This record gives sequence, structure tokens and C-alpha cells, in this order.
Amino acid sequence: MPIPAPNLYPSFNVVRLSHVELVVTDLARSRAFYADTLGLQITHADEDTIHLRAMEERGHHCLVLRKGTEAKVEVLSMKVYSEEDLDKAKDWFEAKGLAARWVERPFQGRTLRTQDIFGTPLEFYFKMDRLAPIHQKYALYHGVKPLRIDHFNCFTKDVDASVAFYNEMGFRVTEYTEDEESKRLWAAWMHRKGGVHDIAFTNGRGPRLHHTAFWVPTPLNIIDLLDLMSTTGYLANIERGPGRHGISNAFFLYVLDPDGHRIEIYCSDYQTVDPDLEPIKWDLKDPQRQTLWGAPAPRSWFEHGSLFNGAEVCEPILKAQPIIAP
Amino acid sequence: MPIPAPNLYPSFNVVRLSHVELVVTDLARSRAFYADTLGLQITHADEDTIHLRAMEERGHHCLVLRKGTEAKVEVLSMKVYSEEDLDKAKDWFEAKGLAARWVERPFQGRTLRTQDIFGTPLEFYFKMDRLAPIHQKYALYHGVKPLRIDHFNCFTKDVDASVAFYNEMGFRVTEYTEDEESKRLWAAWMHRKGGVHDIAFTNGRGPRLHHTAFWVPTPLNIIDLLDLMSTTGYLANIERGPGRHGISNAFFLYVLDPDGHRIEIYCSDYQTVDPDLEPIKWDLKDPQRQTLWGAPAPRSWFEHGSLFNGAEVCEPILKAQPIIAP
Amino acid sequence: MPIPAPNLYPSFNVVRLSHVELVVTDLARSRAFYADTLGLQITHADEDTIHLRAMEERGHHCLVLRKGTEAKVEVLSMKVYSEEDLDKAKDWFEAKGLAARWVERPFQGRTLRTQDIFGTPLEFYFKMDRLAPIHQKYALYHGVKPLRIDHFNCFTKDVDASVAFYNEMGFRVTEYTEDEESKRLWAAWMHRKGGVHDIAFTNGRGPRLHHTAFWVPTPLNIIDLLDLMSTTGYLANIERGPGRHGISNAFFLYVLDPDGHRIEIYCSDYQTVDPDLEPIKWDLKDPQRQTLWGAPAPRSWFEHGSLFNGAEVCEPILKAQPIIAP
Amino acid sequence: MPIPAPNLYPSFNVVRLSHVELVVTDLARSRAFYADTLGLQITHADEDTIHLRAMEERGHHCLVLRKGTEAKVEVLSMKVYSEEDLDKAKDWFEAKGLAARWVERPFQGRTLRTQDIFGTPLEFYFKMDRLAPIHQKYALYHGVKPLRIDHFNCFTKDVDASVAFYNEMGFRVTEYTEDEESKRLWAAWMHRKGGVHDIAFTNGRGPRLHHTAFWVPTPLNIIDLLDLMSTTGYLANIERGPGRHGISNAFFLYVLDPDGHRIEIYCSDYQTVDPDLEPIKWDLKDPQRQTLWGAPAPRSWFEHGSLFNGAEVCEPILKAQPIIAP
Repeated sequence: MPIPAPNLYPSFNVVRLSHVELVVTDLARSRAFYADTLGLQITHADEDTIHLRAMEERGHHCLVLRKGTEAKVEVLSMKVYSEEDLDKAKDWFEAKGLAARWVERPFQGRTLRTQDIFGTPLEFYFKMDRLAPIHQKYALYHGVKPLRIDHFNCFTKDVDASVAFYNEMGFRVTEYTEDEESKRLWAAWMHRKGGVHDIAFTNGRGPRLHHTAFWVPTPLNIIDLLDLMSTTGYLANIERGPGRHGISNAFFLYVLDPDGHRIEIYCSDYQTVDPDLEPIKWDLKDPQRQTLWGAPAPRSWFEHGSLFNGAEVCEPILKAQPIIAP
Repeated sequence: MPIPAPNLYPSFNVVRLSHVELVVTDLARSRAFYADTLGLQITHADEDTIHLRAMEERGHHCLVLRKGTEAKVEVLSMKVYSEEDLDKAKDWFEAKGLAARWVERPFQGRTLRTQDIFGTPLEFYFKMDRLAPIHQKYALYHGVKPLRIDHFNCFTKDVDASVAFYNEMGFRVTEYTEDEESKRLWAAWMHRKGGVHDIAFTNGRGPRLHHTAFWVPTPLNIIDLLDLMSTTGYLANIERGPGRHGISNAFFLYVLDPDGHRIEIYCSDYQTVDPDLEPIKWDLKDPQRQTLWGAPAPRSWFEHGSLFNGAEVCEPILKAQPIIAP
Repeated sequence: MPIPAPNLYPSFNVVRLSHVELVVTDLARSRAFYADTLGLQITHADEDTIHLRAMEERGHHCLVLRKGTEAKVEVLSMKVYSEEDLDKAKDWFEAKGLAARWVERPFQGRTLRTQDIFGTPLEFYFKMDRLAPIHQKYALYHGVKPLRIDHFNCFTKDVDASVAFYNEMGFRVTEYTEDEESKRLWAAWMHRKGGVHDIAFTNGRGPRLHHTAFWVPTPLNIIDLLDLMSTTGYLANIERGPGRHGISNAFFLYVLDPDGHRIEIYCSDYQTVDPDLEPIKWDLKDPQRQTLWGAPAPRSWFEHGSLFNGAEVCEPILKAQPIIAP
Repeated sequence: MPIPAPNLYPSFNVVRLSHVELVVTDLARSRAFYADTLGLQITHADEDTIHLRAMEERGHHCLVLRKGTEAKVEVLSMKVYSEEDLDKAKDWFEAKGLAARWVERPFQGRTLRTQDIFGTPLEFYFKMDRLAPIHQKYALYHGVKPLRIDHFNCFTKDVDASVAFYNEMGFRVTEYTEDEESKRLWAAWMHRKGGVHDIAFTNGRGPRLHHTAFWVPTPLNIIDLLDLMSTTGYLANIERGPGRHGISNAFFLYVLDPDGHRIEIYCSDYQTVDPDLEPIKWDLKDPQRQTLWGAPAPRSWFEHGSLFNGAEVCEPILKAQPIIAP
């Protein structure tokens, strides 16, 4: 199937991905990882949850850690343009036969809870508590100096179907790979906010969250994080990198949090605001799409992901794992 | 006057600033500066004009150099979302009593020529020749490794009036300074594409173009350019920097092209896609708004600008130059 | 006078500059500056003194802060190769008619106290307490991430005489400027350890200490320090930079400690171990020798220095200050 | 065996490693690699040889490429302090029963040809043609911007014996690993010039050259080289990295030249001029000694090396390859 034509006038206006809520089994241990090591700033903490933001964000949170007995992903959250867009979103999901209801979320205005066609839990809101800028409070910068949340990457059993669904919501494909035989999509990167992606989909047992990414200023911040993690007890949490992806051209590092949730540290992708931006197609057999410089990814990177709360995991349509052998 | 509420539903949709056409007096000399030294890529050259793009751009040009007898700025150009937006733009300008007409521009589709309230020549188009990506052709990178055009900065005699006009077009204010006594705006930064600005206005004899900015990957590329320019005959073309602006938080360098057109090399501003992003107000007496680190700008930086073709320059409403003395 | 031929077989073997002892008027304030802001590591602190080292140093201290009523420099200290070299040094100074005596210094072995021909207080030692490496304790790195002390820079009334004296001790000239008329040296950079300098001399009221320099990994660490100091109450302590010196090719920043002692943060000079390395001569009228990129230094940088304990300050032989006008 | 006490007063004074002469099978192909891609500067080229230097070097060459039918290493070359040291070196080698003779080398003064105990061909000279500085000719910088040759790394069948031999020549051990059972050295890093090493030895079939290293300004230059090589036909020449070694703390990249000679690009080691610097011992079982961040090296890195002209390769004393499995 060819990638769908971009939907330039979607039914409601998603501004960008906003935040993820992760269920973690030891709040103190997760705090040490996200706040003390990565350098995210705590904006609220109580017995059960910690809210954090990155250095240039003015919304109250880009990450919510919630204490639970089992590690999983509670929800992926998106910000819409206006309150009106929220109501339109509810109509749109219900017209698709997907349940949607209003929920209360602290530090946010009216919030819509729903899910995508494969059960990925999604929330939409238009208003979040706004905080004073801290991007020039340089004494607060530490760890990898995370500037903002950048994107989600999800396993899905049917990339074509996921792309069609999010495309209808106005997400535009920037890069993709296709299975040459079946002509089905293997993976696709889709954006709303003007970077390479707000969300990406990869063929695999899904729905599962492959990773959440944070944007940092330069590759040197990533080198600093590697030095820090490898000498403070987090050596085993370094999974892959540093390297440059062929797809997106990003300089990357993948680390695992204490519960195994994967975090990408990421910089240097490109601007995609032009509505007529042509998606870049990569050959599934081209090893440089994964790593421009040729170093293979470990097997865990292809297989491991976080479960979504309440979503049933299914086997993918495309079976052959195109793992590029080390 | 307070800054105007953002116009979230403008009459037509401007995607981003697109390119500038500069009239230069010696095409070979300008080519040596922009292509050989800064590192922009030539996409077309004939006897009278050179078109260039930056490394991550797929549109045909972000800079047009045109040979002329006198250095000036021919036009600032913007990209709109769709062909329909072009027609709406024409109606909007004409309803304001501002002449607007269709013009032919090579490598572009239908183009609208008009001007703002003070005579700044503007063009709008929706379609430009799209070129193959070169952002991973690393052998082509040189000079300062410019990635994309970032913004225009203009002197205007009345910042409040300019801001009101562009605000009505949907440009949103991200940061500003105000004259405490008169409560008039001294300067304002306005965006469409999700960075700190596509265009900024500063009180001064106007309309004149203060500078055009290009975005680069890291501060080290700016240091490389300083080393290169200072040892290849361009020492006198280095005007100000490197430094960090308080406003926008950008790491900057200002250089002058062989005709005195000012170019800013710029990196590390922040994402502004939230429609409810609160503008940051700076005190006109705070020297850190100009340079976070305190080094003063030279007098030329406050006074010199490029003339726009056909626009009459007027004295500003606010007289006192708040030059921060060296 | 031509610069003297290098003395390749000096009477005693100086390995490198080692440390400086600064008298400061408020120990807590100086600790906040050197430890909390610059990032030096405290190795000992009592009521009257603080000893600090940089991240890759294994000797106990590269900086000693001593509480006093008046800011001054107590002594410049050098490490010699062996205990035998200490005895030879004593003989050499005494043969010059310069008093030399053994003194007790904590954390050091036998230490020789003496002075140069103009009264600059000097100490030599061969053994200092050695500490465990911390260069891979990345959790300790902060501030500008100082790696090691790099050099001293001194005003002297007679650069030719100072150079002749230190040349006899085996210091080799790497770069210099000469007054074209009198053919006297204006400034000279001299090394023992294989970089551009361990000590430099500049014509001026002297002896006074112009600055002490610390070596950092990359220019980005200097940018980080500028961001930190300018937003934590140290804006007025930023004196000059960032920039690149023509002489030494170093990327530099000059800051003033709370007592006005000048500190240079410095990286990227070059290796000078070849005994036949040719000194580079700079034209006193070439503004790029001071700043390759052309930005002028503030007047304070040419005039201000720290007094040495017990040394009488004299007017320089060369009178005209070759300040490069802003 | 414990590592030997440093010989602080060797019979002759080696200043530093100087250059390597590589036999290559296609001079044009090697030129494209070393000059056009890595960025070394050609100082002489004729039909059979190319001489190159790095950006901050003033000696005529740090690398000589010689055309031959079979790839190999002709010789490792060292610079001594004075002509007198050359004569002392000849005596010293001959006293060891190692043949030593004067040879003619273009662009160098009197040169001594000899070998170490295992047949590694060595040359010593005191004077080489000195060239004008180019470290501030920034228009010449390209590729990885190599600043200087840094070190050699050799396989040897008996690290203890090699270390004892070079220690007697005055090379000092900075870091080492030991086989816990036999208490024999597994690898050792030795310096003369004040960095972590001029030459290193690793247990293995030897003598063979593992790699020659060049020093670059920052990790970002190494990232630039990776981007360049991976998009200009040199993807298969990237062998290992980027990463940080535990040993030496260096940020590294290993690439293979068109004949398979391994080159390390290297930055950020530390200063070692103190004669009492304590060697750092690493546990052979500690995977962080090889890669602080944990990523394994490919098998080729442990096994492949270049042959020395005329040296017979022998099996190592320590058999078990402590390859850290991927």
C-alpha cells in the first residue's frame, strides 16, 4: 500500500505530543533516574506520583511517574489547539466506534480519554497549568540537560492501519520503510509539531511502547550522560548508542529506566513544517537506515517494549524480523 | 499598549518565512561569501542571479542574490499552506487598501507581490520547486554548515503598528520589550513556524532590514566560522559575537556580507508551537536582554540596516536609542 | 634584543607550574566561586585555608585560598623533577644573589621559598600528596569542568629581563611580541610542560599577576560557564570573552574572582615538546594577536592585576600601552 | 611481574613518537583516504611516496605512505632531543646486541635505523625539516581536523618484556592490565611526551602494529568524520566507535585505511608530565577498561593488525583472548 496522502484539514487540530504516564514499581528509584540522572525537573511529587518537565517546557509536565505493582504505560497524551478541538476529537473517536470519555487529570483542564484502533490508550487536553520559564535558570541544568519531550515510538501489529488512522488525525509521514514483497509499511515516522515525528510506528508485537524520546542541545550532552551513567551504577541501563540514525538523521542514545521503559536521548533532526514535504522512503535492506555509521543494534532493541495498560498485544502482520545482524 | 491577543484563526495560513532576495553589487564577491564561506549550496546561477539553499532545505531557495548597482533588499518572501491561502491573502491585503498583484518568479508557483503597512515589500507563494534531500550528503557540508533560514529582523518606525499588522496575519509574539514611560513596544519577536521568530521588529528608522538569520547545528560551528572568516580576509565583516541573547536564548554571531547586508548565524532557541505560549516581557533597561553575558554590541549594530526596494524610510516614534554603552 | 637561545640543559629541572596561593578576604565567598561555580574540587578546608584540585590532577592542590585582610598573591609554585633538583635550585638562586630558604608547606615535601629578579615570590617542591584519580568520577564534574591548572601570566617592568631569567631556568619561548622601535620584548610565552606556556610575561607595572589559567575540555564548557555565571549573580565578574587568542590559538574566557583575582578559562592550545620548536613572532600592531576574531578587550584587562606579597611594583620600561581601541 | 620502576634518567632522551611509514598498495586510494577524508596535509608527493603532516605540526611529516606490492609497516619513528642523544642511542642499542646503522631519510637529518627486542623496526632522528605553522590557516582544516600524531599501539608476544625494554629507554607506564593468574602484564600504555602514551603494547601475535592514533580537538570532529565516511563510500572502513575507553579516558574511533592499516582518532586524554605519576591498574575482567560505556568491540579489533617489515610474528605467551563477548 502506498503511504496515504496527507490530510491537510483534519477534523481536529493536534498541536503536538505532550506527555506520557509511566507506571513504575519504585518511585524513589525512578526519581533518581529521571530527575537526578537525566536532569528532568520535578514540578510536583506526592506519595504516588511524580510530575516532571524538561528545561524549555512551560507546561506543567511531560512525564508522569505513577507508583504501581507492575511496570506499564498508563497513557500517551496529546495537546490540542483549543477547547473546541477537544469536543471535535470526542465526536471523531466516537464516530469511529472508539469509546471516549472525559476524565479528571491534575494540573490539566478538561481531558478526553480514548484509544486508537489497536487499543493504545490516548488522552487529549487543551489546557495545562503553565509554569514560569526556567530555560535561562542555568544553575538547574544537569544530567543530559533535557530540553523537551520529542516523540513516542510504538510497536504495532499493522503499520499501514496505524498510519492510516493517525494520518486521518492530521499526522503527516516524514520517513518510512516498506516491505518490498508485500508492499506493506514496515515502519513510519509521523509529525504534527514540525519535527521528524511526534509518533512513530514499527511492525512488531503490539501495541507496545518502544520508547519515549527527549530532545537535548548537542551530541556532547549525550556523551556527558554516557560518562555519568557508566560511572554511577547505570552501566547496564545503556542499551544502544551513541550513533546517528539514517532515518531522521538524529544523533541518538537509548537507555532503559529502572523498570525497563526505554528512553531515547535525541538531537539534530530537521524542520518539517512544509505541508508538501515529501516523505523519504528507505529500503528495508539498507542497514544505514537504522545506523548511518553501521554499528548494529542489540537484539533487545528490536524485541523489548513496554505494555500499555489494558491493551491486548497481538502478533504482527509482517513476520520476518529484519534484524541487521551484528 | 499591551501586546495584542494572538489571532489563532487568521484569514490565511502562513507556514513560515521562506527566503529573501538581496540586491548585491558584485555577484562573484557575494558568491564567495555566501557559498564558499558560509556554506550555502548554489541551486541555480546565471549572469544576474544566484539561488541558494541551506543543507536541510528541500525548497529550491532560501536566498536569492541579484546583481544591481546599489545594495538593497528586493523582497521578503513567505510560504503559505495552500493555493487557496494565496487567494485569501490577496483579498486580505486588498481589503487593507494595500496593492497586491500576481508576479512570475522562477522555480516557484503562483506568487503574490504586496507590502506591509510601512511599505516593506512582501511576497507569498505556496509552491516552490522541491529538490532532493542533501542533509545526509555530508561531503557537501562546509563553512558554518547552515541548516535552514530562520528569521528576518526589521527596523520599523512603529513597533506597535507592525506587531498589530502581523498579529492579524497570525504571527504570534514570543518575547518583547516595552518602553516603560510610553508603554509602547520597543521590540517584538513573532513566529509562525514554531521557533522564537519568523520575523522580529525593532524601533528605529524604518522600514529597513536589520538582518536575515540562518540556523546552524551547534555553537562550535559558529566558532569554526569565526576562525575561518578571521583568517581568510573577512575579519572586518565580523560585527558582533559570539554571544548569547537574553531574548530568545539564542547563541549568535552577526556578520556583514560584502555589501553590508547583515547575516545572523544562530542556534539553540526553543519550541513555541503551543498556541497558549505566554510571551516573555523584558525590561528595556535590562542589559541581559541583548547579551546574557554582558558584552556590549558595537554602535553599528544598533544603527545600520539594509534599505528595502521602494520603501520610504521614516524616523521612529520612540526617539531615545537605548544603546547599552560599552 | 633578540629572544635568547633556549637553554636545553638548565641547572635544575622544572616539570611544570604547580599551584598558586591567593589571599582572599572572604573564604566562603571564594569557595562559592571556585568550588561551586568553576567546579574545582576541595581537597582540604579549615578555618583559614581551602585547598583545591582540578579533575585530572592527582597532586593535592593546584589552588590554595588563604584568608587575609587584603587580596594579594602569596606565591607562585612550581614542581621540580626530583629532590636533587630542589637542592640544585637553591644553589642556583643563591648564586644569583637571591635569598632561598626551606619552608614547611602542608601536603608537600621539602619546599624552597625564593623569588625572581623582580621580587615575584616563587616556591619549588618535588613531592606533593598524591590523591586517587577522579577524572572518571563523572558525577563530580560541574561548572566549567576544569581539568588542570595551565599557566600563570604576569606583568613585569622588563620583559627581556624576565625572559632571560626564566630562560636560564629552562623555560622556552613559544610566542612573543616585540616593540618595533626599541626592539625590546613586549610580551612572551614560556613553557616547561609541553603546552604554549607555564608562565607568560607582559610589559606593565610589575611584578603583578595578570591571571591564572585553567584548562577545560572544549569551548562548550566555557559557554556553559558563561550561562551559569550570568544567571547566578556573577555577571559583573565576566571580564572578557569568549574569544580566540591569535597568540597561543587558545579559546579563552576571563573572569574575576570575588577579590578581583583574574582567572582564565582556556582550551585548545598546541603541543610544544620539540626542543627545536621555533617561537612565533607577532607584530605588536597586529590586533589579531590578542583576539583572532577582532573584538577588543576592555581597558581593565590591560590595566588590572593582583599584587604579589612583598613585591614592590615598578613602572615598566616600555611606556606606551598598545591598547587596541574598541 | 610488577611493572618496573620508571627509569627517570635514561641513556638517551626520546622526545616523542614522530611518524610512521606505511607501505600501501594504491597510492591514489590512500591519498584519498588520508588527505581528502581524514584531512592530513600533504607536504611532499612523488611517484612512490606521499609525506603528510597534521594541522599543528611543524615537522615535515607524521605519516609517510610508500607504494608497495604488499601492505605492511616499514618503520615506527621517534624524535630524540639532540644530536648527541642519537649517538647515545646507537651505543645503547648496540650494547643490547641490536644492530643499529645510519640511514638517509629525506627531509630529516642523521637517522638511526634499528629494532626492538622482538624485531619491531625503529628509527630515531633529532632534526626534521621545519615548516611554517598552519594551525591558524583555518581554510585548510577539513575531514576530522587532525591536530597531531598521538601514539602507536602494538601487539607483542610478551608485554612484560616489551615494557621492560621501552622502560629502560625512559618510557613511563601510565595505565596497565595484568593477568590475575600469571601476574603477567596483559597490556600497558607508555609515554614520553606527557600524554597517556606514545606507544602501547597488548598481548597477541606480534610484533604487529595494532594502530596509529591522531589527536583531534573534540568529540564533535569524530562525529563529523563518521558522517562523512559513512556517506562517501567508507562505511565498511568504520571498525569501532565512537566510544570512551576506560583506559586513558579517551574518546575514540577506529577506522581502517584502504589497505587495512588501523587508524585511531582520539581526543581528551590527560597530562602525565609528573615523574611520580602513579600508573593506573585495570582488572582484566573489567569490561569498562575497554569501553567505559559498555558496548563491545568487534572481533576484528582484537585480532587484526599490520605486519612490520622484516619482523617475524610469534604466538603470544598469554593464550586466552579476553574478548569481551558482544
